Amino acid sequence: MIKKLLTVLLISVAYLSHAQNKIVVFQSDFGVKDGAVSAMKGVATGVSADLKLYDLTHEIPAYNIWEASYRLYQTVNYWPAGTVFVSVVDPGVGTARKSVVLKTKTGQYIVTPDNGTLTLIAESLGIAEIRQIDEARNRRKGSEKSYTFHGRDVYAYTAARLAAGVITYQQVGPELPKQVVKIPYQKAVLEGGTLKGTIDILDIQYGNLWTNIGDDLVKQLNVKVGDMLHLVIYQNGEKKFEGDAPYSDTFGEVAKGKPLAYMNSLMQLSFALNQGSFADIYKIGSGSDWSVVVSRK
Amino acid sequence: MIKKLLTVLLISVAYLSHAQNKIVVFQSDFGVKDGAVSAMKGVATGVSADLKLYDLTHEIPAYNIWEASYRLYQTVNYWPAGTVFVSVVDPGVGTARKSVVLKTKTGQYIVTPDNGTLTLIAESLGIAEIRQIDEARNRRKGSEKSYTFHGRDVYAYTAARLAAGVITYQQVGPELPKQVVKIPYQKAVLEGGTLKGTIDILDIQYGNLWTNIGDDLVKQLNVKVGDMLHLVIYQNGEKKFEGDAPYSDTFGEVAKGKPLAYMNSLMQLSFALNQGSFADIYKIGSGSDWSVVVSRK
Amino acid sequence: MIKKLLTVLLISVAYLSHAQNKIVVFQSDFGVKDGAVSAMKGVATGVSADLKLYDLTHEIPAYNIWEASYRLYQTVNYWPAGTVFVSVVDPGVGTARKSVVLKTKTGQYIVTPDNGTLTLIAESLGIAEIRQIDEARNRRKGSEKSYTFHGRDVYAYTAARLAAGVITYQQVGPELPKQVVKIPYQKAVLEGGTLKGTIDILDIQYGNLWTNIGDDLVKQLNVKVGDMLHLVIYQNGEKKFEGDAPYSDTFGEVAKGKPLAYMNSLMQLSFALNQGSFADIYKIGSGSDWSVVVSRK
Repeated sequence: MIKKLLTVLLISVAYLSHAQNKIVVFQSDFGVKDGAVSAMKGVATGVSADLKLYDLTHEIPAYNIWEASYRLYQTVNYWPAGTVFVSVVDPGVGTARKSVVLKTKTGQYIVTPDNGTLTLIAESLGIAEIRQIDEARNRRKGSEKSYTFHGRDVYAYTAARLAAGVITYQQVGPELPKQVVKIPYQKAVLEGGTLKGTIDILDIQYGNLWTNIGDDLVKQLNVKVGDMLHLVIYQNGEKKFEGDAPYSDTFGEVAKGKPLAYMNSLMQLSFALNQGSFADIYKIGSGSDWSVVVSRK
Repeated sequence: MIKKLLTVLLISVAYLSHAQNKIVVFQSDFGVKDGAVSAMKGVATGVSADLKLYDLTHEIPAYNIWEASYRLYQTVNYWPAGTVFVSVVDPGVGTARKSVVLKTKTGQYIVTPDNGTLTLIAESLGIAEIRQIDEARNRRKGSEKSYTFHGRDVYAYTAARLAAGVITYQQVGPELPKQVVKIPYQKAVLEGGTLKGTIDILDIQYGNLWTNIGDDLVKQLNVKVGDMLHLVIYQNGEKKFEGDAPYSDTFGEVAKGKPLAYMNSLMQLSFALNQGSFADIYKIGSGSDWSVVVSRK
Repeated sequence: MIKKLLTVLLISVAYLSHAQNKIVVFQSDFGVKDGAVSAMKGVATGVSADLKLYDLTHEIPAYNIWEASYRLYQTVNYWPAGTVFVSVVDPGVGTARKSVVLKTKTGQYIVTPDNGTLTLIAESLGIAEIRQIDEARNRRKGSEKSYTFHGRDVYAYTAARLAAGVITYQQVGPELPKQVVKIPYQKAVLEGGTLKGTIDILDIQYGNLWTNIGDDLVKQLNVKVGDMLHLVIYQNGEKKFEGDAPYSDTFGEVAKGKPLAYMNSLMQLSFALNQGSFADIYKIGSGSDWSVVVSRK
């Protein structure tokens, strides 16, 4: 009898070590001045007090789906397989967008409205499987009565149940075709000696421009430190900047206020002004609207 | 002997599952730029490294007890019974206000100065019991020597010991009468065809006005989408705005910059300008000073 | 056999209770708008999902090593022995500064570039031991290929392995002499009836000046409430302010806008304007550049 008990104990331990890792990571455009993020974490804790709840960021600009997509792309793969992300940037709440849970090929889960938020992660980590949340089963009890705050009542609740092992991934809901709603943007390409790409994001603190053009393409163009690049920036096809920028190792290689090109910490081609904000001075933004064309002079 | 050990083990497990849930949630007006919040969490971790420590918000405007009260009201009930909240918005630190732990009828605990912070939670969730913190027993060792940072040395410390099961609720200190210090404000009422209430809070990002008038009262007045409402706003009894606002489903039903009435995500009557900030344009604030009177035209 | 198993179980429990406490606390100048902090926590979670990850602050002004040093000084000792701090304020990333783990005499660990960040903690808590991180062994797998984000790939990774007990403190790397890179600053002294010290930090919300002159020195000068003090403030030796300030219990003891001296919550001599910002109005900053000279009138 004691032997049996011990066996059960040991099997439980073994089982638990193979279940989800009980980690949920939250992202939203809610900010942290009110109680919305805390309400989501409260609901998750109500599912299981054993969960560990972390944040990616809650400072996504309001309704900026592209940036939500980018922050996931920048972060998800540093978390272990089994981690469950919740991303709530949802301008279409109440409309027909689907609520889904995507499983990446590297084993992380992302709970989100399928509104473009999954654009970059689907391309970078790949879709192992994608399921639509069955809200009849996966919704906080008591939340059907009136208004539903989806981030709290469906997304946080479902993420917590998945992370805690209360439901399996299959119990999230029916499997969907392996495709997501995608925000169109200029992919990074090398065509006829010209690099094309998108300004993915601004390095906010300094106003630098980070593109999606990786160092492999830059190497294919045979660009070396000291080479002069010619840069044109478009917003929705309209030219917003044109100028030269030397490919540099350090910012001090150009005069104060002058543009330079460099490889950022993600190994992607970036542009900056020495001791100035490229974004502010030339009024350049980021996102799927903003494309760049780069050539050697 | 082995049997005894196992019994002890199993009893421990059973006991633990009925103890507090080891969750502490912090709220303050400290911001997160300095070390004050981290010092509170350090003291809590020193009590028990098994605790899980979360935040409601630390961005309560300095000394704004009303907003502290409102954020608790907005959030506490989404956390499971046994969760211990610490709220430190304490303009009267060093004065005679009592330090208390309130247990709600839904089973959460709130550790706070009794300075009005408990106004809304006492009304919404009810007081199961309230106890004054016996600082002779419930104060961080070593903190008696000099200045005491109550948030850290008494509130965080007591909350951690309660959440970890080091002390029982009874050991917090002597029971008090079931009443708290209340901030006076206009309760939501329907009187003679007129709705009266308070502007509880601003929906900061958009400048919308959220009142404490629930959808039940709005239904009693038989208000339907498309009906025109007449709105008067007072600060301390002085008129600050008067105008009409149609009760609307979507913001686009009125011209740009025009007022409208709607039901917010908490099912409470709210007012907005279409594509504008009601708060900024008409200089409207929130809190116990700000009352509204609403009638049908 | 069962007996053996139980013994193993009990020994494991006993062992765990003496291992590190599985707590990691992060500080940086990254802000929380992008994914950098989350990537560090993801890497730590990948080492062990049992860790509990907290924040000191990520709002250290960019590259401000002094403030990083001050926030550690203000906070570390409130956390229990065994807690592992990660501080990444690293303007010299890529240069020859050493990456180290300091163990304080009170038992906390600090993982950081040795660039001045350890100045104040080394003086206040003392150095029990200091080791250089052996990056050949203590670096995230896969991060050698290209650019290394030290905060994530070396510091967070090493901190997590140390906190989780995957490596011992000895396995961090070779022991160094018990000294750290120090930012020079005016230590608090009483010389010939004059107090000298540094403006450690601003109490940002109010613009008050907090010095490193403790209440013991103030007592040695026999200063009592109501005494008039004479204050001179220098930046790099150049006089920026000179004036009188009564030593006060409450701010209301001086006229609106007038200076006063008081003892802050850390029991250190501080200066404020009644209902005004000393820092803004007289353009006073904080850090190792800013010294004060105080005498009785």
